[in-house]
Amino acid sequence: MAPGTAVILAAGLGTRIGGRPKGLLKVAGREILYRTMVLLQKNGIKRFVIVTNERYAPLYREFIERHGFNAELVINPEPEKGNGHSLHLARNRVSGRFVLVMSDHVYGEAFIERAVKGDGLIADRKPGWINVEEATKVKIRDGRVERIGKGLREWDAVDTGFFVLDEGIFEVTARLEEERDGDYPLSEVVERAGLRVTFVDGLGWTDVDTPEELKRARKMLVFTAVKGTGDGFISRHINRKISTRVSYLLAEKVTPNQMTALTFTLGILSAFLTLVNLPLAGILYQLSSILDGVDGELARAQLRTSRFGGYIDSLLDRYVDGAFLALMAYTTLREPLWYLVALLALLGSVMVSYSTERFRAAYGEDAYRAIPALRKLPGKRDERIFLTMLFLLHPSGASVKALLLLLALLTNLRVILTAWLVGRKKS
Amino acid sequence: MAPGTAVILAAGLGTRIGGRPKGLLKVAGREILYRTMVLLQKNGIKRFVIVTNERYAPLYREFIERHGFNAELVINPEPEKGNGHSLHLARNRVSGRFVLVMSDHVYGEAFIERAVKGDGLIADRKPGWINVEEATKVKIRDGRVERIGKGLREWDAVDTGFFVLDEGIFEVTARLEEERDGDYPLSEVVERAGLRVTFVDGLGWTDVDTPEELKRARKMLVFTAVKGTGDGFISRHINRKISTRVSYLLAEKVTPNQMTALTFTLGILSAFLTLVNLPLAGILYQLSSILDGVDGELARAQLRTSRFGGYIDSLLDRYVDGAFLALMAYTTLREPLWYLVALLALLGSVMVSYSTERFRAAYGEDAYRAIPALRKLPGKRDERIFLTMLFLLHPSGASVKALLLLLALLTNLRVILTAWLVGRKKS
Repeated sequence: MAPGTAVILAAGLGTRIGGRPKGLLKVAGREILYRTMVLLQKNGIKRFVIVTNERYAPLYREFIERHGFNAELVINPEPEKGNGHSLHLARNRVSGRFVLVMSDHVYGEAFIERAVKGDGLIADRKPGWINVEEATKVKIRDGRVERIGKGLREWDAVDTGFFVLDEGIFEVTARLEEERDGDYPLSEVVERAGLRVTFVDGLGWTDVDTPEELKRARKMLVFTAVKGTGDGFISRHINRKISTRVSYLLAEKVTPNQMTALTFTLGILSAFLTLVNLPLAGILYQLSSILDGVDGELARAQLRTSRFGGYIDSLLDRYVDGAFLALMAYTTLREPLWYLVALLALLGSVMVSYSTERFRAAYGEDAYRAIPALRKLPGKRDERIFLTMLFLLHPSGASVKALLLLLALLTNLRVILTAWLVGRKKS
Repeated sequence: MAPGTAVILAAGLGTRIGGRPKGLLKVAGREILYRTMVLLQKNGIKRFVIVTNERYAPLYREFIERHGFNAELVINPEPEKGNGHSLHLARNRVSGRFVLVMSDHVYGEAFIERAVKGDGLIADRKPGWINVEEATKVKIRDGRVERIGKGLREWDAVDTGFFVLDEGIFEVTARLEEERDGDYPLSEVVERAGLRVTFVDGLGWTDVDTPEELKRARKMLVFTAVKGTGDGFISRHINRKISTRVSYLLAEKVTPNQMTALTFTLGILSAFLTLVNLPLAGILYQLSSILDGVDGELARAQLRTSRFGGYIDSLLDRYVDGAFLALMAYTTLREPLWYLVALLALLGSVMVSYSTERFRAAYGEDAYRAIPALRKLPGKRDERIFLTMLFLLHPSGASVKALLLLLALLTNLRVILTAWLVGRKKS
C-alpha cells in the first residue's frame, strides 16, 4: 500500500538562517517545506504530521493555514534531545505505512516520485548536490542498514533524510525511550530497526545548514528543472547551459510569467530590428531564444508550472518566429520568387511545431517521448534561430536568400519526416 | 451494473435482401451486425449470443470468425415460430443484466452509447429515420410498457428493437413457452413482463426490411456522422449540406483515406491554378473545402475513424491553405509591403488551427467543447476559403490585396481572442 501520511521532523533548534526555522526558508521562491509537502501531495500523501518545538509552533501553524495544508502539529517540549524522540511523539498520529522526512532537506520532483514508492531508508549511492563529508552514511548488509553515521569509514550510500516506514518502527522507539530516557538520535532508531534500504540514485535532493547551502539548493532545483524532451542540438549544447545560469540568478526574484513577457518583448524587438540592423537583429533573436528556456525552468523550479503558461508561451514563440521571418523578408527581398520561398519558410516554421502539438492533441502523449527518433531530426526552433543568427552576421541579399531557402527546405522536410515517423509508429 | 453480454435475435427467415440474412447486409461498407457489435463492444459488452436458424448458422459462423468476435451461436430449429422463442433459447447463456438487440436494426454511435445505459425497453418519442406506420409502438403507463404492437391507436413512443434486460425475463418466457407451445412474439414477452421504458429520443437508428430502407439506413449513418464541433458558419450552412450528400453517394465505394488523398490533390491543384486563373482557382479551392468534410464523414459512417487519419488530414489542410496563399500572393503581388501582409495572413491562417490544437494538447479536451464561445468567433477555415473564393470571382490587384489584409486581420485577431478566452476559462 502506498503511504497516505507523512511525518515531518521540524523540532531541531540547530542552526537557523535569518532567524527562521529551516523548513520555512525559501528556495526558488517557495518555503522548503511547502515544496516537500506539495510534491508529496502530488504523490498520494493526504495528511501531514509536523513535529516541532514550542518556539516554532506559531510559525508552522501560520504556514499550514496560509497554504491550507491538511496538517497537524505535534509539540516536542524537549527539542534539545535527539530527534528519535520527535519521531516517537508522532506514534499515535499515524497508522500503517507512512513517510518520514526531514524539514530541512530540499527534494526535487523526480526524487520524491521515486522515493515514496520505496521501502525503509531511501539512500543515494551517487549524491550530486551534497557535501559527502558532512553527510550521514549508511553501511548496508543484505539489503538492510547495518550501520549508520557521519563518521563511517566504510559505507555504501548516503542517507537522504527520506524514509518509508510502518508503525512497527514505534516498537523500536518505545524500547529506546526506556533505555535512553528519551534522548536518542534518529540514526539509532534506524540502525536498531535494521531498516530495509531503497536506492534512489543521482536525483535532485540536498540538505540546508548554511546560507551557502541554500544557494546550492537553488542551483539544484534550477538545474534539475530542465524538461528538455523537445530540445534540439543548440539548446542542449549552448542555450540550456546559459539559461539555467540565468534561472539560477533570477529564481528568487522573477516569476515565469514576467519572464515570458520579457522574452516575447525581446523576440519582437529583434524582429523589428531586422529593419535597421540585421546582424544585431540576429544576435538579439538568438538571445531571446536562450532566454526562452528560462520561463519554463523558473516555473518548474518554483513549482509554478501552469498549462495556460505553456499554452501562451508556445503561441508567442510562433509569433516571434513569424514576425522575424516576415520582417527580415520585407527588408531584404524584392523578387516575388524569393517571397514565395519566404512564405514557404514561414509555413514550415510554424508547421514544425504544429506537427508535434497536433500529435499530442491526437494521441495524448508527448511526440518526442512516444517517437524518440523525432529528437534526432534537425530543424527545431533553437537550431533554426541559431542558423538565422549565423547567416545574418555578415548579411547580404544572397545570404538572406540562402537562409530562407535552407529554412524552407529544412522545416518542411522535417514535417514530412515527422508525419512519416508518426505513421510508421501509430497507423 | 452495466450489461456485459448481448443477445442478438437473428433467427427470423422474414424478407431477405440479395439472398443474405439482413444482419449480414452491408451499410456504409460494414455488415449491420458488425456495426452493432463493435459499437456495443465500445460500450462495455464483452460477449455475444447470436440466436439464428440452421440455414443461416454457417454464414454467421464465418462472420464471427472473420471479425474475431467473442460470440457463440444458438440455433433455433423452429425459426417460423414467434421470436419470443428465440429469446427463450438464450436463457442458459446469459446471467445478470444483458442487452437484447435485433439483427436487422441499424444503430448510430450516439444511440448505442445512450441505450446501453438504459433499463428495459429503449423507446424513441421522436424517431427520425423510420416509417412510423410500420413501426412497433408502445403505450406506457407509470414508466412501464402497458401495450405494444404495430396497430396501436394510442401510443407514446416507438420500440427501437433495443432492450436492457435481466435474467428475470426468462421466467416470463418460460410461462409463455407452456401457454403457447413455444410460439409467441417478443412483443408479447415485453407486454407480459411490463418492462420499464427508457427514452432515447431523436438519435440515429432505423430498421431494414427492403432495399429502399437499406439506402435510408446509409443516409442515416452519413447524416448522423457529422462531428461538427469545429464547423464554421459556411460549413454549417453550405459545405455540410453538400458533403453529406457526397458521402451518401460514396459511402459504399470510397474509403476515408482515398477521399483525403483526393481532397488534398484538388486543394493543391487549386493553389497552382492561381498561377493561371484566379476565379477558377477560388472555386476549386471552395470545392476542396466542401469535400474536406467527406473523409471524416465516411470514416465515422464506416467505423473507420483513425487518429492517424485525422492527424494527416489536418497537416494536409494546413499545407493546402499555405500553398494557396503563397502562390496567390506570388502571382499577384509586386510590392514588399503587400508581401508582408501576405506573410502575416499565412501565419494567422496556420495559427488559427495551432491555437485550438495546442489547446487540446495542453488540456486534453476539444477546445470548442471546453469553450463554446470559441465557436462564435469568425475566421475558421471554411469561412476563410469561402471568402477567398468570393474575392477571387472578379480578381484585381486591389481585390487580392483587400483579401490578404482581411485574412491577416481576421485570423490573427481570432488567435488573440482565442488566447483571451482560454485565459478567462482556464488560467
